[in-house]
Amino acid sequence: MNGTLYGLGVGPGDPELITLKAHRLLQGAEVIAYPAPDEGESLARTIAAPHISAGRIEIAIRVPMRSERDPAQEVYDAAAEEIAEHLAAGRDVAVLCEGDPFFYGSFMYLFGRLARDHRVEVVPGVSSLTACAAALGTPLAARDDQLVVIPASLHARQISLRLSDVDAAAIIKLGRHFAKVRDCLAASGLLGKARYIERASLETQRMLPLEEVDPAAVPYFSMILVHRRGQAWTV
Amino acid sequence: MNGTLYGLGVGPGDPELITLKAHRLLQGAEVIAYPAPDEGESLARTIAAPHISAGRIEIAIRVPMRSERDPAQEVYDAAAEEIAEHLAAGRDVAVLCEGDPFFYGSFMYLFGRLARDHRVEVVPGVSSLTACAAALGTPLAARDDQLVVIPASLHARQISLRLSDVDAAAIIKLGRHFAKVRDCLAASGLLGKARYIERASLETQRMLPLEEVDPAAVPYFSMILVHRRGQAWTV
Repeated sequence: MNGTLYGLGVGPGDPELITLKAHRLLQGAEVIAYPAPDEGESLARTIAAPHISAGRIEIAIRVPMRSERDPAQEVYDAAAEEIAEHLAAGRDVAVLCEGDPFFYGSFMYLFGRLARDHRVEVVPGVSSLTACAAALGTPLAARDDQLVVIPASLHARQISLRLSDVDAAAIIKLGRHFAKVRDCLAASGLLGKARYIERASLETQRMLPLEEVDPAAVPYFSMILVHRRGQAWTV
Repeated sequence: MNGTLYGLGVGPGDPELITLKAHRLLQGAEVIAYPAPDEGESLARTIAAPHISAGRIEIAIRVPMRSERDPAQEVYDAAAEEIAEHLAAGRDVAVLCEGDPFFYGSFMYLFGRLARDHRVEVVPGVSSLTACAAALGTPLAARDDQLVVIPASLHARQISLRLSDVDAAAIIKLGRHFAKVRDCLAASGLLGKARYIERASLETQRMLPLEEVDPAAVPYFSMILVHRRGQAWTV
């Protein structure tokens, strides 16, 4: 009897924002895998840490930092192979995913390699999108609104074009792209309707007016929410 | 000491997809409020039912069905007033929200009325967006993808325009708009890359090829996910 591969959304940061289902499956899995930087802590593992029992087999999938545009194929090949061996031996494997597994997550690279030949279940999680909105106290979208998620790595031209014709936007993964995004918002006349947040729901969460953000200190896990009407609701 | 208003995301349907945090706050709240149709069950309450203890004060906010474009101001006025009385009497009030409170949810109408004068905390939940992707086994977006959420109630022209220039889209709240949306996808050459799901994560969940969907039987809680590349990941 082969094991099952679980893609577990562990939520945006606060360990209490994991679902009951992910929590249960995490407790039951013999093997736990998670993405990790070259050196240091895995954010996904840190989020899930209070829920991980002792004695689990752990697989840290260390993806080189520069690989945002190249998903480090050989790293995922090796991880998929290691996971497949556990599954073949009848052990369930839980892959911890920051936020949600299928919302800009790296889990899809394991899913693409393993879903054809193995039983896979994806457990959705609270994404950074809704966590940022909750922390900022700003509804994302209402009724007929179009809401677009824009990666900050896009060209300024593309970002400005998109901002010009939607009701609401979430500009994600700001990092070193912050100044460019801020300039796009200014050019679109939306600066006054934009809100910045970093590390939503973690203890280090910060919300700042855009003009107070130091572009040199913006982390990857940050987001700007903007709504054309200033706010989504009308009372 | 006044009470706190909690906007609790209870997730997309499966009661196990509620977060530990929403579960804890739900157990502690003396008063529970939720949107409900004119007659019959509230979906949000049904989702949360296994977690609701006996003896709670319950407020069903009955919003007339035709009010999608008019958020039934007087209904929310009355509900906000009733909730405010409980808060003033020192009782915490938990408002149950399908999916996430700030992702096209009606909670914002209470938030808009009560956040200025009362302590409010929004607890993000798993949205239908990620729940549908998980059930379909189809990642929403990767790396530089732009992902747009399109309400199906928009004009065909607006839907087609948006489909023409994004990488990935989620077309939500299909209901009686299904045939129009299907025609837009066909005209955009995206029909073969679109996937349909209704009532994600509920026991009545169904996934169908678009050509097998009966347009007369599409529920409001349904969604089409589409990705220009057919799938978000490349292996």
